[in-house]
Amino acid sequence: MNAFMDIQVHAQMLADQERMQSYRDALHEVVQKDDVVVDFGTGTGVLAAFACQAGAARVYAIERLPIVEVARATVAASGFADRVVFYEQDFATVDLPQRADVLVSETLGSFGVGETSFGTLVDCRERMLRQSGRMIPHRVRLFAAPVSAPEFYDLLSFAATQRFGLDLAAAKELALNQHQGTHITTTQCLSPAIPLCAINLATVDRSTADRLDIQVDFPLEKEGTVHGIAGWFEADLTPSVTLSNAPTRRPSSWQHSFFPLLQPVALIGGEHLTLRLRMDCLDTDHFIWRWDSRIARVEHGIRVMVAHFQQDSFRGRIISRNPLRSTAPAYAPRSTPDGEVTRFLLEHVDGTQTEEDLIALWHRQHPPTTAPDQRSRLQRLIRRALVLGDIA
Amino acid sequence: MNAFMDIQVHAQMLADQERMQSYRDALHEVVQKDDVVVDFGTGTGVLAAFACQAGAARVYAIERLPIVEVARATVAASGFADRVVFYEQDFATVDLPQRADVLVSETLGSFGVGETSFGTLVDCRERMLRQSGRMIPHRVRLFAAPVSAPEFYDLLSFAATQRFGLDLAAAKELALNQHQGTHITTTQCLSPAIPLCAINLATVDRSTADRLDIQVDFPLEKEGTVHGIAGWFEADLTPSVTLSNAPTRRPSSWQHSFFPLLQPVALIGGEHLTLRLRMDCLDTDHFIWRWDSRIARVEHGIRVMVAHFQQDSFRGRIISRNPLRSTAPAYAPRSTPDGEVTRFLLEHVDGTQTEEDLIALWHRQHPPTTAPDQRSRLQRLIRRALVLGDIA
Repeated sequence: MNAFMDIQVHAQMLADQERMQSYRDALHEVVQKDDVVVDFGTGTGVLAAFACQAGAARVYAIERLPIVEVARATVAASGFADRVVFYEQDFATVDLPQRADVLVSETLGSFGVGETSFGTLVDCRERMLRQSGRMIPHRVRLFAAPVSAPEFYDLLSFAATQRFGLDLAAAKELALNQHQGTHITTTQCLSPAIPLCAINLATVDRSTADRLDIQVDFPLEKEGTVHGIAGWFEADLTPSVTLSNAPTRRPSSWQHSFFPLLQPVALIGGEHLTLRLRMDCLDTDHFIWRWDSRIARVEHGIRVMVAHFQQDSFRGRIISRNPLRSTAPAYAPRSTPDGEVTRFLLEHVDGTQTEEDLIALWHRQHPPTTAPDQRSRLQRLIRRALVLGDIA
Repeated sequence: MNAFMDIQVHAQMLADQERMQSYRDALHEVVQKDDVVVDFGTGTGVLAAFACQAGAARVYAIERLPIVEVARATVAASGFADRVVFYEQDFATVDLPQRADVLVSETLGSFGVGETSFGTLVDCRERMLRQSGRMIPHRVRLFAAPVSAPEFYDLLSFAATQRFGLDLAAAKELALNQHQGTHITTTQCLSPAIPLCAINLATVDRSTADRLDIQVDFPLEKEGTVHGIAGWFEADLTPSVTLSNAPTRRPSSWQHSFFPLLQPVALIGGEHLTLRLRMDCLDTDHFIWRWDSRIARVEHGIRVMVAHFQQDSFRGRIISRNPLRSTAPAYAPRSTPDGEVTRFLLEHVDGTQTEEDLIALWHRQHPPTTAPDQRSRLQRLIRRALVLGDIA
């Protein structure tokens, strides 16, 4: 289940007063009377409603998930039903009747990029926003710092299982090759935070927005044990409104991103951690993260390497063997019994036959004695094809 | 995404020492040397490994999710690869070569039933366990108490949004018709906990296991405000090992279930809360919960009704309009562009043509000028058909 199908997740975001106030302030600053606004990923519809409060004449609200029904109700109850048009579909298939003056979205993840790729926002900008239209946020900056997080690291490395005689090395390998969400405090940071990059969403092109390749050097100033690197964002909604989940600020509805090291490293002082961080977008909401971490110190004038780890989120994916074999280039798939039924459906749906017609037709073609449970299989596959969008 | 695709969820369960120790103790108590064991929903494989440690000659481990790869690796690294057979499929399609002496599962939700219905466990028992075979857990008891939980209630009722001029009544209606996971403390309980029922998994039949209909009366002994009813479980793994997430015990990896009232009710003392709680299983992991709550007090010898709420989880589902219209009996679906591609695939996969062959064939039939992005669409739909099992 997508997390945004859970109303509790929306409740937590809406309870974040700074998040709400910042977006409201930004929309009041940017939206002018009778503007056209696009709200990408409207969710519960609060940004669309804020845009109307700020004077927008028309808001196009895009949301592919069923939460859009909450947005419809919220916008209507707030008195803006006649100004907001909803697109309950993937943004890629949306074709607006006019270009917008303002594009707003709150799809920020714990490390800036997250719910959607920045390239997706660039796509929206290019297809939906007029020249010199305004974008909220218009710039996102990423920050990181090495951190000490022994309890969370013990959790990810399955330390608690050791007393039971189990070997969870495989699970540990997966967990330590994912960046995980957790809350970091400033006292856990072993060096000052370093800005990694700034992405100017108002001007960047898609291919640039969908890749990161950054190398930074953190002087490790405190003694302690480093367990990973924490990341967070600052989003400039407008020139005067900034929203951030930095650990120096009040706790927010966002967690922080934690990139664990393969092993904890005890520091004696004077070390540096050099991080090379890469991110590539597979598609709108799938990313590959790679983080190479080198820890070194200078002893008697000589630079000594203490640790070097190369990690990536591809190794952190839980993948079963079954679908893997079919990714080989020479693999030639064949149809299954479910596939035969789906093929039958797609051959016979034509906007005139109901579910019962289709089931009756199947039974005429396939004697029921050989396939006793075909009715429920047909019903299930019709539902599935509707949900998947193969039929409508 | 299913929550059990997230390695952090497994890490939290495995870090719960009482959960781990209880299941290990139970398996050591129940499994005899050379026993055959079924582990339903093996997850990371720890119960299968415990069964081997306890002397099992053969463990059949069933898990439909890709986490089964972690189980394979964990069982192998722990030295039990030759004794555990994995079924990476839905339990309903599993056909074991022999009946088992012991059926073990840890699919307990925050209110006992949760990850899977009790009826599913009964199905497993009837199809996989020999007569007089042993079941872990063999009995589950449910408990409840009215609670005061103002902060969590404010979250669910979107109290924080009120200062922004928004009307989130629709979202509130959804949120208050779901039972939500949260952590309750004993000080939040407004009456002693009352046992609701005991489900004897070793003897109950499926239709009984898949329904609850319970009425109980809670005397509200404390002053305060009641926001909902909290629920939790006690599971008897064996006659001597009990596992529970009761608030009186140490915090566990389970949350508690919170059934909110439609409105908070301020108590002056002497009230009773009468709860009728019903649960029906739609299928293995979908449930409809209904909770009717009546709060009354006696004034001058007369019973006065203070509040009466009827809530159910069907009203708590976020459902978009699009799929709904297609559930009308007279609805006649038609194919979409994705459906056309899927139909083409299902007509042409025959175990000899690779993905590239299929794409080349599509392009021969469909001039590329009219459909520039067909390659990625074909690749996506081939992947999807493989994942869905339409092709193999």
